[in-house]
Amino acid sequence: MADAADEATEESFGDVMPEAARRLLLGAVQAFAERGFHATTTRDIASRAGMSPAALYIHYKTKEELLYQISRVGHERSVRILTEAAATGGDNARRLEAAVRAFVRWHAEHHTTARVVQYELSALEPGHYEEIVGLRRRTEEILRGIVADGVRAGEFAVADLPGTVLAVLSLCIDVARWYHAGGRRGPEEIGALYAGLVLRMVGAGHQK
Amino acid sequence: MADAADEATEESFGDVMPEAARRLLLGAVQAFAERGFHATTTRDIASRAGMSPAALYIHYKTKEELLYQISRVGHERSVRILTEAAATGGDNARRLEAAVRAFVRWHAEHHTTARVVQYELSALEPGHYEEIVGLRRRTEEILRGIVADGVRAGEFAVADLPGTVLAVLSLCIDVARWYHAGGRRGPEEIGALYAGLVLRMVGAGHQK
Repeated sequence: MADAADEATEESFGDVMPEAARRLLLGAVQAFAERGFHATTTRDIASRAGMSPAALYIHYKTKEELLYQISRVGHERSVRILTEAAATGGDNARRLEAAVRAFVRWHAEHHTTARVVQYELSALEPGHYEEIVGLRRRTEEILRGIVADGVRAGEFAVADLPGTVLAVLSLCIDVARWYHAGGRRGPEEIGALYAGLVLRMVGAGHQK
Repeated sequence: MADAADEATEESFGDVMPEAARRLLLGAVQAFAERGFHATTTRDIASRAGMSPAALYIHYKTKEELLYQISRVGHERSVRILTEAAATGGDNARRLEAAVRAFVRWHAEHHTTARVVQYELSALEPGHYEEIVGLRRRTEEILRGIVADGVRAGEFAVADLPGTVLAVLSLCIDVARWYHAGGRRGPEEIGALYAGLVLRMVGAGHQK
């Protein structure tokens, strides 16, 4: 279980270079997830990465800088996943289904990273916080775009568009809280279940 | 905003006596919410309650004992809210609507307590953890009972009963993560929106 989670976390930060910087991000995700941002020291993080605190400072000036990089990588990934899903061919129900499946799968597989990203947002410095909030807004806009397209096309019936989109995002994100690798349902299965529930939430299939 | 949140938190622990024990729970909720369980010291908690660390130990043996009491009170409240809603008269759609409204309203109004309860679960000692998991199971059973009654009565159409109930609970609980008192929607409005979405999730109104 821990191995699968660690593999997923490593995959999240696969693009981060040099390797020492990547190892430090992995160490920070694990430490923040276990103890919380405020209870973690840069020494804890360096030691998990097999490095000295002095070596950490070559790559990251502060502990907050590590949290910011984790949040940025996680949120950019969310935007990319949803952008790709929005570009799926077919009707809007298929696009929404693709978006929910991919978003849920990411939050299940990368639940450790996602929890840090979601729960420690308030520890970011104002400038970093604003940037992350901008990425979250982008995520919301992409999903809202798909649902709005479906409403315009007469495929969906939604009384409160922003409220419904907020609920759909919230449902997907919360998978990171309760998901655990040994559980009854895997990421694919939860993605399929949730795609079906979300199609019901937007009133798909009852508007013909 | 802070005042409203504090009032809600005070109300959560209104039954806890003596008053010093209640003040310590309030201080612990605030400290855990701001800094996380592991970064909070018993000195922080005592000082927020206007007490000495020695006075804290009269009421709570450890920091974990405070977290356990917060979790217990929060989860017992959830069970009570859902039990009352399940006893609502009318058809199962009305019962489910009442349950979702009340559960969402609690998670919005008491979002500070709810976040501590949800995010710090892994810091509980094994015996306490088991007890809290038992209360969570009870919460799930009550909601599953309502949905199952609706399916049996031909009011709802649900392909995956446990999965759908898990999603409904998750949707409601995650309100505590994103809700803030200055936001566009109040607890009542979110409760009404979510009740409508959940009725769609269980396929209410399409089975006649």
